[in-house]
Amino acid sequence: MARTVEVTELLLREAQQSLLETSMALEDVVPVCEDLDNAGYWSVECWGGTAFRSGIRFLNEDPWERLRTYRQLLPKTRLQMLLRGQNLVAHRNFDDSIVSRFVEKAALNGIDVFRIYDALNDVRNLKASVAAVKNAGKHAQGAICYCPSPVHTVPVFVDIAQQIKELGCDSICVQDVDGLLKPQAAYDLVKGIKQKCGTDTLVSLHAHSTTGVTLVSLMKAIEAGCDIVDTAISSLALGRGHNPTESLVAMLEGTGFESRLDTERMHRVKQHIAAVRPRYHEFFNQPIGVETETFQHQIPAALMLNMEYQLKGQGASHLLDQVAAEIQNVRRDAGYPALAIPASEVLGTQAMLNVLQGKYNVITSEFADLMLGYYGTTLGAKDPETMAKAASRENKPSISCRPADLLAPTWEKRRTEALALGANGSDEDVLTYAMFPNAATQFFQTRTAGPKDIQKVASETKPGTGPAPLGDATGHAMPAESRTYIITVGGEEHTVSVAAAP
Amino acid sequence: MARTVEVTELLLREAQQSLLETSMALEDVVPVCEDLDNAGYWSVECWGGTAFRSGIRFLNEDPWERLRTYRQLLPKTRLQMLLRGQNLVAHRNFDDSIVSRFVEKAALNGIDVFRIYDALNDVRNLKASVAAVKNAGKHAQGAICYCPSPVHTVPVFVDIAQQIKELGCDSICVQDVDGLLKPQAAYDLVKGIKQKCGTDTLVSLHAHSTTGVTLVSLMKAIEAGCDIVDTAISSLALGRGHNPTESLVAMLEGTGFESRLDTERMHRVKQHIAAVRPRYHEFFNQPIGVETETFQHQIPAALMLNMEYQLKGQGASHLLDQVAAEIQNVRRDAGYPALAIPASEVLGTQAMLNVLQGKYNVITSEFADLMLGYYGTTLGAKDPETMAKAASRENKPSISCRPADLLAPTWEKRRTEALALGANGSDEDVLTYAMFPNAATQFFQTRTAGPKDIQKVASETKPGTGPAPLGDATGHAMPAESRTYIITVGGEEHTVSVAAAP
Repeated sequence: MARTVEVTELLLREAQQSLLETSMALEDVVPVCEDLDNAGYWSVECWGGTAFRSGIRFLNEDPWERLRTYRQLLPKTRLQMLLRGQNLVAHRNFDDSIVSRFVEKAALNGIDVFRIYDALNDVRNLKASVAAVKNAGKHAQGAICYCPSPVHTVPVFVDIAQQIKELGCDSICVQDVDGLLKPQAAYDLVKGIKQKCGTDTLVSLHAHSTTGVTLVSLMKAIEAGCDIVDTAISSLALGRGHNPTESLVAMLEGTGFESRLDTERMHRVKQHIAAVRPRYHEFFNQPIGVETETFQHQIPAALMLNMEYQLKGQGASHLLDQVAAEIQNVRRDAGYPALAIPASEVLGTQAMLNVLQGKYNVITSEFADLMLGYYGTTLGAKDPETMAKAASRENKPSISCRPADLLAPTWEKRRTEALALGANGSDEDVLTYAMFPNAATQFFQTRTAGPKDIQKVASETKPGTGPAPLGDATGHAMPAESRTYIITVGGEEHTVSVAAAP
Repeated sequence: MARTVEVTELLLREAQQSLLETSMALEDVVPVCEDLDNAGYWSVECWGGTAFRSGIRFLNEDPWERLRTYRQLLPKTRLQMLLRGQNLVAHRNFDDSIVSRFVEKAALNGIDVFRIYDALNDVRNLKASVAAVKNAGKHAQGAICYCPSPVHTVPVFVDIAQQIKELGCDSICVQDVDGLLKPQAAYDLVKGIKQKCGTDTLVSLHAHSTTGVTLVSLMKAIEAGCDIVDTAISSLALGRGHNPTESLVAMLEGTGFESRLDTERMHRVKQHIAAVRPRYHEFFNQPIGVETETFQHQIPAALMLNMEYQLKGQGASHLLDQVAAEIQNVRRDAGYPALAIPASEVLGTQAMLNVLQGKYNVITSEFADLMLGYYGTTLGAKDPETMAKAASRENKPSISCRPADLLAPTWEKRRTEALALGANGSDEDVLTYAMFPNAATQFFQTRTAGPKDIQKVASETKPGTGPAPLGDATGHAMPAESRTYIITVGGEEHTVSVAAAP
């Protein structure tokens, strides 16, 4: 008797984000929903991450409405979302009143499985959302960010898994956003988790295909007892995306493992996506290949691309290698957070400033917060000198409690603000506003126009030019005198004051 | 102690053929030769297959000269070629005098390792070339064409391996040209070969990445004892090509296996190839993806593409699925040859004619030869009715001996002809002429002009339009009355008389 391996399909959310750098228009994915719903997936990931912001900011589409549509079109299948712990679908900590309300509403609108991670692997940051998921009677999946470092070894990750389990999670996910999880490590990690947390603990594996090696890692993880693996239908797979679902199914043949997936339905999904994908060519100009360099620098592809753009805007493209190397230093100084959102962007921006302005002459407030414990605790020790600089710059102490313990409830305040700015009175609108106040305010004004045509989105976002360059819009390098800049990284604005080194 | 897994690099030959549909200009690969030579490869494949014809036909370059250049630039590394048994580097049987001379000259010009296969897995067709390789003191690697069928099971392939071993081969290659070899089958096959032929028998695995699954197959084969695997540097890998060398190296980390490859040198090769690859964009317009459909139809990507072109030229694109299905029937009727060159092209053309003209109303002389044993014997029984049709059409009997036993020596005749047509007096030129008389005659006239610029080649070959369409050049469908056509499949011309069905 072959053991069944379950599959989470990423086509409706992260495959789009990884390969098209945006969300696909709803009309392009609606035709595949029936096949997805009947193909035999354990779950279909369709919400969270960058998709939420993409909706209000680029598509002029209510992300809650999209979720309800998926719920209707996929009645038989678990819908899954990615939640950044206390950051929800944004890049900063929210207080528990917002966290619990967000989870409650996501569950009511259709989410069955909440995959919850924290970039620092600080399990305290998962506590509030896991409690809210359990409260809503849904499946809480706690995720480990796989981020090898001198302090992150297999036994350490296994300990984190045990903490996640103790939090009351229904399953544990190993999340590898850069394709860094090599086959033997995948085997050892899953084996270790099963041994420590019990063989009946559901283990899921999420790996990107960036380095070309992780389909083998899925095989090895399955051999070690992994229950669920993430893949994407082949016409939106590979490169910086994920391993192809169809290849996974073929891989298992005769091995003593099998999927429940329907080959014919998968093929129809593949064909449809292949047919509509050219509509997104303006967003997608990355060659599909493998980047084993990632094993050395561990920098997520999106961040690397972003830094390339920013440095180019500064006429400083030649500094890319230096910035990439500096990220290693900054990561070490900060106690080795994972290079996952939001830590990846905080470290990337700081590394760039270190190279351009001199080491820690300029410190972003986000990096200062990271150093001072306001994102949570890190496994590695932080550099005391950098901590002191951060504390002096922000004029606040370091903390060791769960960061959200310091945040007062803001739900009522946000509700009042949102209503004044054109929200429709629903809790969902208040949450949209709480996540992205500026983009939401804009969206409330334009919502009635309905979702934009994807070609229009392409021309407006001017892909290929990337996010706003570091410094001013003219592309000149930053001047030596003191000035304040707005730095946009991954669509998030950071205010930075630059002064000459003391 | 980790066991060393050896690697054959395909960058200089088959990776180009699979992904660029031509050979790269020599000046684009010369800069990577030093790194390839010092990276620690077991061998570098650089000659044979379609590269030979590509040289004289498209690049106006002497393939023997290219080989000598590689020999000079890669003094430390085994140079490897692909030889189609009694077909050498062409598509028809040559007599033994040509076979032995070709091998002798290839060895003298620089080849160390001869990988020799026969599309029918008729080991008698390897005999003359293996003997010639041993005579030249070089490494003879006999290859099994992996082509699952009702009659081709793992034990059957293992038997073929044993026959190859008994022929005196130094190593045995499992050759999977379509990415059909799934992980468990790879394991079982290598294990079976090692058990039957002895654990000290060197086993090599060549697999394309077409279906996205074969890097896992390489892992499983290695676990079963496979000694050498084929890969291509990552900037010319994946899709219908091969698994990336760098991913293989990363895959092995910590598994108890390791390669001898130098990561830094591989990275330099990757970067250079990535930089020159855009020069070939006109040749390369296939998206990189995975084609698990291949598991069903087993049709090599190149043949499928070719049939698409041909049918399009006939205004008969809608018949593609029918032709693909008919290939299965034709293959069964012919006793299940592998869909490798030249059998793939013979079967493809016949299937197309069956669909367009009615079943076996028109039979190509190549297909008749295949049915009558002139390509060798097949493992499956042939359809007697189709055999009878073939015999009556060609007015010749079926044979059961080694086909080349019927061929008289032609070396002297070819020599005289070649000299009269402008050959330079070398045996190499005579062999070039023997392989491709028309293309060679043309090449002898234009040789002094030197290799063409690759952009010129692109404009002349008009890529995207594919080979000459079936029927006349106007794109009209073939008329009902009797007519003679020249059908070009994979650059080889077939003369076909078409008459109304009796």
